[in-house]
Amino acid sequence: MKFCNQCGAPVRQRVPAGDNLLRYVCDACGTIHYQNPRLVVGCVPEHEGRILLCRRAIEPRRGYWTVPAGFLENGETLQQAAARESLEEALAEVTVGSLLSVVHVLHAEQVHVFFRASLPAARYGVGAESLEVVLVEPAEIPWADIAFPSTDFTLRRYLEDKAAGREQHHFTTIDRRLGRAPEG
Amino acid sequence: MKFCNQCGAPVRQRVPAGDNLLRYVCDACGTIHYQNPRLVVGCVPEHEGRILLCRRAIEPRRGYWTVPAGFLENGETLQQAAARESLEEALAEVTVGSLLSVVHVLHAEQVHVFFRASLPAARYGVGAESLEVVLVEPAEIPWADIAFPSTDFTLRRYLEDKAAGREQHHFTTIDRRLGRAPEG
Repeated sequence: MKFCNQCGAPVRQRVPAGDNLLRYVCDACGTIHYQNPRLVVGCVPEHEGRILLCRRAIEPRRGYWTVPAGFLENGETLQQAAARESLEEALAEVTVGSLLSVVHVLHAEQVHVFFRASLPAARYGVGAESLEVVLVEPAEIPWADIAFPSTDFTLRRYLEDKAAGREQHHFTTIDRRLGRAPEG
Repeated sequence: MKFCNQCGAPVRQRVPAGDNLLRYVCDACGTIHYQNPRLVVGCVPEHEGRILLCRRAIEPRRGYWTVPAGFLENGETLQQAAARESLEEALAEVTVGSLLSVVHVLHAEQVHVFFRASLPAARYGVGAESLEVVLVEPAEIPWADIAFPSTDFTLRRYLEDKAAGREQHHFTTIDRRLGRAPEG
């Protein structure tokens, strides 16, 4: 950030009075520009034991596999976002279920939230942001070509919980800033 | 938003190519300025059956009661944010526990997330953003003077779950844009 989005004057980084973190501040109009993590929301759609995966047509990680997910928009709930992304990326009308995972992706300044979902009919297609969309058996999941660590974490917890007959939710943290491994 | 924070030129609202929502776009440098909901994180600290409440010293809702909560900062987990806010607002060192509530506050473009927490010692004080901090019995909670609907929802679910001996998590949506009542 270089300029104030309210008055157009240059901004600089300083700690505002009463705060203890560096913020972009406009000394011309006084606006403090807070920057906070964004929410990415997705789901693991299942149809008769098979899981819906999308191969990404866009960067980052073009060509790699993921589940439907994207940024939460203003005015929608997490569940609505998960359903919308499934429709956009996989032309799939899902029913969003229980909370599955919450992943703090610290280096990306994002929080990823995934839900379980059911795909009542095996109807899906290739959305604009996908190269390919498939329904796969758990044994066919291309683990070496999964797009993101949060997707890998989420799919593994999904299968573990399903095998155990439970629906829990799972937190983890991924922090590539420090080269840390994921922690619980 | 009136100006581009990258180049300082005026922005205008239009739907970018490949998108379907109005965004602030800079035609001078091409930057699309996405606006997404922010996360507010808090907890319900408990010490021997009593709950820690803070009376707000700042707007909005100055003078009304809430539990420690505030915006998630870049680089921290949800649990770390809940603990940090407890320290800042109530000088309380809490141990953050299970997920309690997720509240979509659509009109504010925020998602509020609350956890259970324990306050191992009855040590607390009045932080800079609080007028007063108290440990109260559930029967003493000033329901008519709770600051926010998300706080009210969260405290009620907390007490219900505690009475039932369970630790569930609860979603709800508050949408004052349409005058809607909270829904599950």
